[in-house]
Amino acid sequence: MNDDKNKKSALTVNSGIPQPPSISLDSVSKFIQKKKKQYTVDEYVRGIVHGDIKILSQAITIIESYLEEHQQIAREIIEKCLPYSGKAKRIGITGIPGVGKSTLIETFGKHITDQNLKLAVLAIDPSSEKSKGSILGDKTRMEDLSIDNNAFIRPSPSAGTLGGVAHKTRETIILCEAAGFDVIFIETVGVGQSETVVHQMVDVFLLLMLTGAGDELQGIKRGIMEMADLFVITKADGTNARKAVITKAQVENAIHFFPATDSGWIPRVQTCSAQKKQGISEIWNSILEYYEILNKNKFLENKRLEQSRYWMYEAINDVLRSKFYNNHEIKSKLRTIEADLMQGSISSYTAAMNLLKEYFKEM
Amino acid sequence: MNDDKNKKSALTVNSGIPQPPSISLDSVSKFIQKKKKQYTVDEYVRGIVHGDIKILSQAITIIESYLEEHQQIAREIIEKCLPYSGKAKRIGITGIPGVGKSTLIETFGKHITDQNLKLAVLAIDPSSEKSKGSILGDKTRMEDLSIDNNAFIRPSPSAGTLGGVAHKTRETIILCEAAGFDVIFIETVGVGQSETVVHQMVDVFLLLMLTGAGDELQGIKRGIMEMADLFVITKADGTNARKAVITKAQVENAIHFFPATDSGWIPRVQTCSAQKKQGISEIWNSILEYYEILNKNKFLENKRLEQSRYWMYEAINDVLRSKFYNNHEIKSKLRTIEADLMQGSISSYTAAMNLLKEYFKEM
Repeated sequence: MNDDKNKKSALTVNSGIPQPPSISLDSVSKFIQKKKKQYTVDEYVRGIVHGDIKILSQAITIIESYLEEHQQIAREIIEKCLPYSGKAKRIGITGIPGVGKSTLIETFGKHITDQNLKLAVLAIDPSSEKSKGSILGDKTRMEDLSIDNNAFIRPSPSAGTLGGVAHKTRETIILCEAAGFDVIFIETVGVGQSETVVHQMVDVFLLLMLTGAGDELQGIKRGIMEMADLFVITKADGTNARKAVITKAQVENAIHFFPATDSGWIPRVQTCSAQKKQGISEIWNSILEYYEILNKNKFLENKRLEQSRYWMYEAINDVLRSKFYNNHEIKSKLRTIEADLMQGSISSYTAAMNLLKEYFKEM
Repeated sequence: MNDDKNKKSALTVNSGIPQPPSISLDSVSKFIQKKKKQYTVDEYVRGIVHGDIKILSQAITIIESYLEEHQQIAREIIEKCLPYSGKAKRIGITGIPGVGKSTLIETFGKHITDQNLKLAVLAIDPSSEKSKGSILGDKTRMEDLSIDNNAFIRPSPSAGTLGGVAHKTRETIILCEAAGFDVIFIETVGVGQSETVVHQMVDVFLLLMLTGAGDELQGIKRGIMEMADLFVITKADGTNARKAVITKAQVENAIHFFPATDSGWIPRVQTCSAQKKQGISEIWNSILEYYEILNKNKFLENKRLEQSRYWMYEAINDVLRSKFYNNHEIKSKLRTIEADLMQGSISSYTAAMNLLKEYFKEM
């Protein structure tokens, strides 16, 4: 640091007035090289369809941007990629922190790429900034996959609401499919609302669980167990191996109480050890079976159509709500009315009606 | 019938032209008596607060009406009753058809009214017309309660969406509380979305379950088990008694997998026989314990405030949505765009944006 300082002083005229640091032509050209080329929509689409990962990455960045001009370009790229999409297996993976998700994704992912299948790993975690980017923020936690030519790892967009992030992830799936990825993992931490959202954009949903069946399972959020198509008891090795079998039986007993799925698929419980690479091919085989059943009875096709419908209505309702709650008059009035409501001096319905009258009068 | 006809003919001039049937002065006065008196808002409120069941019933009918003029009166009645509300125990009761809900409500209800407590039994079942009014449509299914002076049974409003019905039920709770009811049951069939809605308006939620732990439990909708504060295994008598104990253990094992509740209350599983009046006082005792814990840690107060907030936002979002989807232009355009979406020629987000542009341009 001191060296740098001295260097700078030596190169600039020491007149007492701050001077810009001198820069060489070489560093200028490097700067220009570094600045990403702006492609046209058609160039983006062509690049994506040809499987160009750099262009794919840049297109995803545009999708994730909240700038008006980027949003417009993003819309066009997505619409043009749409005809090339839909062929991948969309797999949701969730589980509480500490369940061994990264290790499983790495090992399971390698099992997939070793078959010369292309794998994209996406994540939904709108709180990643708060949780210090634990999820996919650090590619080093998937060392092998991150240097695998058949794999593409993309961290969760770090800005935006859950709804916003979800839309962007859903559009990223379209782009990845257009780029020829065969399998897409959508990862989420098993502690929040994001599981429901992921469930609405994947074909099959994996819930990773720890052995022990004790309090560590209590962290699993309401309803998540009932969304799972496949339960995977992780770390089933060493002294855990026997416990994993017991947990498996207990989970099997618990899911017995869940309602039958509409798809005809009966949720399955498996154990695995990512470290010892045991039970990994069995997970993949279960997923293949799942697809076989759901393709045969056309359930998968219908599920995806229903998901499309769901996301259209979600987007509409999101905008309707945000227009209302971001309205200047409503914002200030809401605070007063909510205070009245909390004091019990007004009913919920009347509070709502008062605000709505204000809003529609204004519009 | 023939006698009647002859009588009528004898009394009217048989001129070949249809004549109005002659009516006695007595029947006219009966007709006038039968026509319900229209009270002023203050008369309604006074009547309700004095526990006048007839006036309460009429006020609820006004709440349930969709006529603009009734809605206005309803709003005023509710706001004026609000200060007198909040003192009842609000108990949600659900379970699939056949679980013995009516029998339990009758027996459990009598247990409550026998302590000289006033009980109101409400129901939420927006599909009651479809299901031929199986739920509370027939008061005879609760013979004892329906003639009990301490009990008030009110069937579910038969018209309206789930959201609409829910708001009306929530306002009916306010009126019943103002009328001095100590305990309010809100009943729902355990097969739909209505459980979530009921869960948002009660303090404590009972799920009735059948013995057997087999396929009959599969009918319980996703997520309902996780909302329950108290599981009651019904019909635990005769040859069922032993099975009920096994089911109890299995449910206890299953709920072990559920996350801890925020309230500090640990969901409990009990067996009962409504027919043999066994386990009924135990249910009541559990509920009393529940209230003791939740009153002590102020959780109940917070829960109700949160519910008020929830219903305000629900009402707002309901109106925002219905204004949009009932908009004439949107209605016709939605059909076309949804068709495009189902054919995969447009993305969900773009579909949504196209509709929204149309809507806000118009407004």
